[in-house]
Amino acid sequence: MSKEEIARKLAEETGIEVTGRDIEEVISSLLATSHFWEVIQLARLPFRVVAGSINVFARQGWVEITGEGEVILTPAGKDAVAREGIRPRTMYTCPACEGRGVALQELRNLLRKFKEVTAQRPQPIRKYDQGFVTPETTVSRVALMAGRGDLEGKRLLVLGDDDLVGLAAGLSGMPREVAVLEIDERLINFINEVARKENLPVTAERYDFREKLPVEYVGYFDTFITDPPETLEALEICLSRGLNALKGEGCAGYFGLTHAESSYKKWNLLQEMLVSKFKVAITDIIEDFNHYVNWDYLLPSLKSDFPFVKVQPRTNWYRSAMYRIQTLGRGEGIKNEPASCDLYVDEEALPYDEE
Amino acid sequence: MSKEEIARKLAEETGIEVTGRDIEEVISSLLATSHFWEVIQLARLPFRVVAGSINVFARQGWVEITGEGEVILTPAGKDAVAREGIRPRTMYTCPACEGRGVALQELRNLLRKFKEVTAQRPQPIRKYDQGFVTPETTVSRVALMAGRGDLEGKRLLVLGDDDLVGLAAGLSGMPREVAVLEIDERLINFINEVARKENLPVTAERYDFREKLPVEYVGYFDTFITDPPETLEALEICLSRGLNALKGEGCAGYFGLTHAESSYKKWNLLQEMLVSKFKVAITDIIEDFNHYVNWDYLLPSLKSDFPFVKVQPRTNWYRSAMYRIQTLGRGEGIKNEPASCDLYVDEEALPYDEE
Repeated sequence: MSKEEIARKLAEETGIEVTGRDIEEVISSLLATSHFWEVIQLARLPFRVVAGSINVFARQGWVEITGEGEVILTPAGKDAVAREGIRPRTMYTCPACEGRGVALQELRNLLRKFKEVTAQRPQPIRKYDQGFVTPETTVSRVALMAGRGDLEGKRLLVLGDDDLVGLAAGLSGMPREVAVLEIDERLINFINEVARKENLPVTAERYDFREKLPVEYVGYFDTFITDPPETLEALEICLSRGLNALKGEGCAGYFGLTHAESSYKKWNLLQEMLVSKFKVAITDIIEDFNHYVNWDYLLPSLKSDFPFVKVQPRTNWYRSAMYRIQTLGRGEGIKNEPASCDLYVDEEALPYDEE
Repeated sequence: MSKEEIARKLAEETGIEVTGRDIEEVISSLLATSHFWEVIQLARLPFRVVAGSINVFARQGWVEITGEGEVILTPAGKDAVAREGIRPRTMYTCPACEGRGVALQELRNLLRKFKEVTAQRPQPIRKYDQGFVTPETTVSRVALMAGRGDLEGKRLLVLGDDDLVGLAAGLSGMPREVAVLEIDERLINFINEVARKENLPVTAERYDFREKLPVEYVGYFDTFITDPPETLEALEICLSRGLNALKGEGCAGYFGLTHAESSYKKWNLLQEMLVSKFKVAITDIIEDFNHYVNWDYLLPSLKSDFPFVKVQPRTNWYRSAMYRIQTLGRGEGIKNEPASCDLYVDEEALPYDEE
């Protein structure tokens, strides 16, 4: 079968759109690693596309799954790869900055201090779809915002702060004020406690993004950062809350978007929302900026029978691209109203069991 | 005057849209450097906005221009800065990769060889709006395309190749085939000569992007790269040529976009064209990826009386962000027809004298 035929077969079986290029990405990644979670990371595709492809390859006899869940190309698979002219994925990621483009040299002390104060942080729970990024990622976010002129002397809103970026920003001494809106009481208490102890201009309060933005926060901030659930519906609500909180033109917003839960088709729809509906400019899309620390509930909760999936990830495979947007106007037409968000997961999300 | 008042004044005088944030960017950059061309680079704004702002600041008595054309904040300027709470621009750019996120370690030999074969390259001429990037930039483009799976074993189209990226790609040994379409006979001859001497799968032929794409190239390539003039009209024609040349879904295009000649307003309009009209996903926007070597005709041709502008740039100030786009479909609706491009410069372009 050609990669296009495989794609059609997989699309029929799963109802997901799959292209020949997607199949090529999976094979190319399998030529570089036999570990499923690394394949996901290298292939830049939703979980179900990668898992489904490997399952089709296994039925075709192109791959074998070892007792340890490793995915190994068979001689037949190698022939197919050669026929398609597919090459192993090679990355040229800068080792100094892990590909983010920002240097942490001048923020070494911040990184050390941040690790110290967050050592006893609350662990991710499934109820709120949590999972936090590495300290290097968090401090890189501070560096990125600072380098873009969005942090020093500015008011920062953090919408949901499992990553504790509000504390990192506060510890940097750069922002005038940081407000964290968060749903999880454990995180709110932790952030407020550290902020008090360290005397930071950071406050956290309870907020569910389906509620209206507190009126005193509307048009109050220079910058927002958030890490929304990746359905288009949730993205739209979260980002409109952030945009509502900004003062007007020339303000910035930051958020992450993955491949593991969002196809480029979804990226396109989100981008259309950003540029046409919200009328902002997308100023940066930095691939693999955000590296998530593996979370405990992944394997126990994952709804998948594939043996190659039931393998403890050996690297921080879950990553996201960092988007920066800049406002061109005052965001008229973005209403501050309660919203029902019915959809926290879509067909591209990581498939968890019912809770 | 507040930064918003300055912005309004400048907008009235010049007819360019200017925001308070723009004024802040210029001041923040002036706090970091007194060299006009570095201010342009740091402020991420069109030439005319930066030059116009500094001119207003000078009339306000906020800056003084030295005999060497340096722009120095006066005590009155420093007071104004303090009132507005503006901080010096600080960059956290990774020194190892110059912020591109890609490593050249494994491509050291390619970089050396590329420098060697291009040492006698034709110099930029104004007739074709030329100006080429540093060899490190060119080889980083190869690394980026390779890391995204767009180069190895693929067919690459280079639309306009003042940067000689076609030769760099050919020398890497990665692409199956490279076609360069270029208007300048000097470059065509140079590329073909080096390709013959080095036995590379690279051919260059004459093409003006206003002409139809040669029919044998329609739907033939996996990847295109181009560096278009930055009017929306020219961008649309160039990018549609590139998209026309691609095989279909899952193919990639690369191009640069500056701040020095394109405001975020224009970025937004271009992005709308990409995601709504061309229906592609923007997968990467890497700030300051492309560094241009200073070109000889800049100061002699520049239409500006400001003394701070008439200063030889001391760094490679002209930069652009690298965009990568990926096709979701077959680009139906993008016609391969001759187009008249009336507009190679707009009000945001570098203002050159009439030739």
